[in-house]
Amino acid sequence: MSITVYGFWRSIASFRVRVALKLKGLPFEEIPVDILSGEQFQPDYAAVSAERVVPTFIHDGHSIFQSLAIIEYLEALQPEPRLIPLDVKEKAYAKSLALVTVADAHPLVTPRVRNHLAKTFGADAEAIEAWGRHWTTEGLATYERLLAQRPAAPFALGAEPGLADICIAGQVVTAQYVKLGLDDFPAVAKLAEHCFKLPAFATSHPYEQPGYKAARAAH
Amino acid sequence: MSITVYGFWRSIASFRVRVALKLKGLPFEEIPVDILSGEQFQPDYAAVSAERVVPTFIHDGHSIFQSLAIIEYLEALQPEPRLIPLDVKEKAYAKSLALVTVADAHPLVTPRVRNHLAKTFGADAEAIEAWGRHWTTEGLATYERLLAQRPAAPFALGAEPGLADICIAGQVVTAQYVKLGLDDFPAVAKLAEHCFKLPAFATSHPYEQPGYKAARAAH
Repeated sequence: MSITVYGFWRSIASFRVRVALKLKGLPFEEIPVDILSGEQFQPDYAAVSAERVVPTFIHDGHSIFQSLAIIEYLEALQPEPRLIPLDVKEKAYAKSLALVTVADAHPLVTPRVRNHLAKTFGADAEAIEAWGRHWTTEGLATYERLLAQRPAAPFALGAEPGLADICIAGQVVTAQYVKLGLDDFPAVAKLAEHCFKLPAFATSHPYEQPGYKAARAAH
Repeated sequence: MSITVYGFWRSIASFRVRVALKLKGLPFEEIPVDILSGEQFQPDYAAVSAERVVPTFIHDGHSIFQSLAIIEYLEALQPEPRLIPLDVKEKAYAKSLALVTVADAHPLVTPRVRNHLAKTFGADAEAIEAWGRHWTTEGLATYERLLAQRPAAPFALGAEPGLADICIAGQVVTAQYVKLGLDDFPAVAKLAEHCFKLPAFATSHPYEQPGYKAARAAH
């Protein structure tokens, strides 16, 4: 079995797929696509991804895009450990938690949006960071309210980490990007702390990727 | 069995859930929450939805949010007609098509984002519409490229409409909102034409909802 992921160290969607692969113990190769410099728009990558985003996941020649679709595919490929509950109501809860960041909070802070704000409204670095903090705060606040209704134990759905935790952890990484502390979101902070104690999460963190280290060394 | 959906005539996510319920022939009551005037932030609705978005789906007292999670739950509640393929690769394709709009294109044009652009960057109605057209074009262009790779026949995954078509049809409604023609997206236009020939899609269109008609009558 061969698994290749076109990803990027800073991409939160790439982070999600990386954690899922590591939790399932599936070996994979990650090929970097620098979405900050626009490599995803080059013809070579356009042939890999019609959407021109990362990650693109390739399993024995079959290509899948969108992090949630990829993680769900992984669940079928390697059912254990389960990341998505079998119970219908629990599955819906896990998916809805995932979508708070996947469909609502995170899309607003991606590089293409930040670039478009600069181009269209002349937003400077400070205004763009404020924009990022606003939407990241909204996402964290939603998670905090949801975790107040149903406390993590210690993960969102119970004793084992899964899809929902992967997505919440990604939202916490976004908070780090925009220098947002978690003091107002103690339940989220505690859940993320449990996540990043696990090697699958810790070694998937953007700042632990070779691309980040290379970018830092170059500056 | 009792199904209630808190929705809004203009909400694309409410549209998706409405179509899915109608394709499955499940009776439901829709309770309007006016997200243009901010009704979703009122305490009454905050108790219904911790995320303060529409739609919220309630089945015999059990509450689910996020349109994709709701549609997947409906699939278990009433498996026929199927909206999501059972085959693992086809399922991943359907989900990834859905997520092009759910996770990438549509989140950028919601009322909360348009309001924040006005507040933060002083964007006027024209600038906000241009913003909406930009991101809606991006989503349509992605769908057009994907449908070039694998033509609709006549629906995205074959002879019957499903989750992917529901989401693409929602993207086409967004194009109508921002007065964007589909001349550059002929494959998307044709797929949408097939969708809106079906009563489940046609009667779910935002402009067919009582709330839209009432809002027009009031002007």
